[in-house]
Amino acid sequence: MSREWISEGLYEGWRQELRVDRMLARKKSAFQDIAVFENVDLGRVLMLDGVVQITERDEFVYQEMLTHVPLLEHGDAKRVLIIGAGDGGVLRRVLEHGTVEKAVMVEIDGDVIALSKEFLPSIAGNAWNDPRAEVIVGDGIEYVTNAADGSFDVIIVDSTDPIGVGEVLFTDSFYKHCARILTANGIIVNQCGVPFMQADELRDTSARRAQFFDHVSAYVAAVPTYVGGFMTLGVAAKGSVPGRQPVDVIRARAQKAGIRGTRYWTPEMHVASFTLPPYIAQNLPR
Amino acid sequence: MSREWISEGLYEGWRQELRVDRMLARKKSAFQDIAVFENVDLGRVLMLDGVVQITERDEFVYQEMLTHVPLLEHGDAKRVLIIGAGDGGVLRRVLEHGTVEKAVMVEIDGDVIALSKEFLPSIAGNAWNDPRAEVIVGDGIEYVTNAADGSFDVIIVDSTDPIGVGEVLFTDSFYKHCARILTANGIIVNQCGVPFMQADELRDTSARRAQFFDHVSAYVAAVPTYVGGFMTLGVAAKGSVPGRQPVDVIRARAQKAGIRGTRYWTPEMHVASFTLPPYIAQNLPR
Repeated sequence: MSREWISEGLYEGWRQELRVDRMLARKKSAFQDIAVFENVDLGRVLMLDGVVQITERDEFVYQEMLTHVPLLEHGDAKRVLIIGAGDGGVLRRVLEHGTVEKAVMVEIDGDVIALSKEFLPSIAGNAWNDPRAEVIVGDGIEYVTNAADGSFDVIIVDSTDPIGVGEVLFTDSFYKHCARILTANGIIVNQCGVPFMQADELRDTSARRAQFFDHVSAYVAAVPTYVGGFMTLGVAAKGSVPGRQPVDVIRARAQKAGIRGTRYWTPEMHVASFTLPPYIAQNLPR
Repeated sequence: MSREWISEGLYEGWRQELRVDRMLARKKSAFQDIAVFENVDLGRVLMLDGVVQITERDEFVYQEMLTHVPLLEHGDAKRVLIIGAGDGGVLRRVLEHGTVEKAVMVEIDGDVIALSKEFLPSIAGNAWNDPRAEVIVGDGIEYVTNAADGSFDVIIVDSTDPIGVGEVLFTDSFYKHCARILTANGIIVNQCGVPFMQADELRDTSARRAQFFDHVSAYVAAVPTYVGGFMTLGVAAKGSVPGRQPVDVIRARAQKAGIRGTRYWTPEMHVASFTLPPYIAQNLPR
């Protein structure tokens, strides 16, 4: 039996291909082309506009690092805003923190949520039904523009790359409002691509955020299905400098929050992930 | 103009493809199929039996970590044995250490050396002509079997995966002789694949080496063209436990050796790279 392969063509001469062992859903939504399929090596895969967003087998890397690091850097996060992440994976990881009282998730594409609920139930687990969760189908930039000052302790931006529907999440206006609606010790994190191939993304995002936040930094995660070495997660903070807490403090905070059973994140990985290779660090503001 | 793409098919349903912008050399040697070509994103690329070995653009990640970490963990490495690495990149990085007096490189395939000299001159730089270098075209297992006890301070095994020509470099007999020909504080390092997809490689290699070395460990590097997240570099030592030196000690050793201008390795990255995610650490002997 011959099977179709889907090609991810982010770069001119370098691409990854995934075999489609069973196509589960393919839909042109109001915002993007959505595909969910099964792959022998990676389990179920979600692609948006031809770019891998998440796979069942490696989601733990990205989700654990995108969630546990900012929440435990903050140390007392009660109100968390998630922009994007329609698959529900970040929501689930945020709600694993027993210390979180409210998680608002704003995803622009309701079809991503619906298809994830139907075909990727393991990603979000029971998060959709958690009474602490508020899921809004809407525009992230509009939401942050209208939210009250100091509404959130942590903002997690799980966007696509800064092309297409995700582009507004990489603008001055967006970061300005994020800074405003964060509390005095607030932290924002967002994916900044793979600097080996997309150094501009980290450089531009960091420079933009430096206008509105006291501290701009980044940490790294080696995500199997994001080709090109380390992906960088950009972090900006109004209070203390991110990445300076000792391992023991992070461990104590994780224990208090009830975080266990992680497969990539540990207190030691948390601290180590702020150590950047020079080829990445050179893209941060000095 | 339509161009050919080369597909790297290490896994059943997941592959990377590189566009061949100019084929520079393609040869069936006595041991393997060798291809050298130019690619718009990665510069010149060396493939052996259809698997990417090295590219001009990302070679610094793998070479710096494969070389500087074991040499600076040892701290006084004067005699270094390199198995494989026919492109000369490890030899060059080893000889950057002014403290090294002798580097013996044993590569089984003379065609890899010849084609690398002709088409990948930037990888080895002037290493081929360094009076401290001895380059032997021969069998690595035979070399270590015949070498005298305590001949080397560090052994670097830069092999292909444990299939085909590289398979003998993953055997008990090979590690036993490596342990014998190392000095009392000797260290051996070898690539152990990408554990997200090749966990067996790290698990088996670590278990084998635990028979002949006091300390078996591993560290990680995010190599852009080795798809699948962190690659692990397995390390085994007869003397002190690898990965326990503080940053200041590593920095002082690097300064003494004259190491500068690195783009991935730093003393901080050196230490951080021994921090392993649980999904990798679980493959090491307890």
